[in-house]
Amino acid sequence: MAQVNTTTNIHWHEGDITREERWKALGCKGATLWFTGLSGSGKSTIASALEQTLANNKIFTYRLDGDNIRFGLNTDPKSLMGKGFPEAAAKRFGIGFSAEDRAENIRRIGEVAKLFADAGCVALTSFISPYRKDRDLCRQLHNEAKPSALPFIEIYVDTPLDVCESRDPKGLYKKARAGEIKGFTGIDDPYEAPNAPELVLKTAELSVDQSVAKCMELLKSKGIIG
Amino acid sequence: MAQVNTTTNIHWHEGDITREERWKALGCKGATLWFTGLSGSGKSTIASALEQTLANNKIFTYRLDGDNIRFGLNTDPKSLMGKGFPEAAAKRFGIGFSAEDRAENIRRIGEVAKLFADAGCVALTSFISPYRKDRDLCRQLHNEAKPSALPFIEIYVDTPLDVCESRDPKGLYKKARAGEIKGFTGIDDPYEAPNAPELVLKTAELSVDQSVAKCMELLKSKGIIG
Repeated sequence: MAQVNTTTNIHWHEGDITREERWKALGCKGATLWFTGLSGSGKSTIASALEQTLANNKIFTYRLDGDNIRFGLNTDPKSLMGKGFPEAAAKRFGIGFSAEDRAENIRRIGEVAKLFADAGCVALTSFISPYRKDRDLCRQLHNEAKPSALPFIEIYVDTPLDVCESRDPKGLYKKARAGEIKGFTGIDDPYEAPNAPELVLKTAELSVDQSVAKCMELLKSKGIIG
Repeated sequence: MAQVNTTTNIHWHEGDITREERWKALGCKGATLWFTGLSGSGKSTIASALEQTLANNKIFTYRLDGDNIRFGLNTDPKSLMGKGFPEAAAKRFGIGFSAEDRAENIRRIGEVAKLFADAGCVALTSFISPYRKDRDLCRQLHNEAKPSALPFIEIYVDTPLDVCESRDPKGLYKKARAGEIKGFTGIDDPYEAPNAPELVLKTAELSVDQSVAKCMELLKSKGIIG
């Protein structure tokens, strides 16, 4: 934990701290690494291993994924009703799985990743995020950040469908093939691969270590980590 | 910037990094400091000075305020339409100023602050947040965080209405008195003071330095900073 020696160790100027001042004071730089790919492609495994690697190298990092987003910020109407929202408001603000709900889900994640990046954090997001326009909006949000653009690094975890389906860690492909899940990406809903991702990871050919090393190299080459 | 000497400096274990591991690796602890009070009470001035003080002491911190929330995560319907959302979806997800919109605005801020706290950051929020139930929900979200509760520190910036009104930095009280703004907190909409805030700052009697010092002392007494 950082040490503050005296309670009178206060030095600040009028007006808000700038991003540049914060990054300099904390010795960090922010960026968003946006992992995209099919279910079972390895997004979360790589992002999780990268998160550990960054943290163990004292680089401030945080991962946004289904667990901390879908049960929190982007929770469903029923959960919002449980938190005291009237039914109409809960239905309005709650996030389901329609096309517009998925778009809003990704937009909010993009906005939160942008805040983490602005804070000086290497934000990692691991969501299928199958639609190009939703990802492009997140890139645009970073490009238009104030007072200047924040790095948005799109990482395409490019694993063939048959490999993902053979892994099927959660048994979802089996259910989708049986028609028990509708609108499943790669089966009966499209996955739109990035046109110009900053990095492509072919996990059928790379170990997790190798994938993490490629991410670390990219972060270094962009001057985000030392 | 932290140094990573070799690209092969990768060490990670199967499964996700725990909060405890992340905080230990980064040498930080997370918490949310929730500033609440009337417009002009001094919330943002104190939170901004505290943010600088923490950053200058190498403590990871980030401030959520109207500027980075209302133009981003919690933007309005018109702005969402500009980002490509169809009108119906933009109206559904966009945030205005009705009672339910304000509640959802505060809930989302609470969820994002929780993510920052989980990351190991001292998250500062400066919003009027006039309703007790909205703030109490944010406290509840932190209390129910997985795998264990996160610190939620409510700081009541307790400045008399007449003092806030005489400061009137943005001319809002004048407009509210003239009937040009409706539903303005303290004029024609209630402010519900916290029943049991962790800290009360009477800014009519304290300098900004003294207020910041009280926040720093509280963070130390709770073991959040060293």
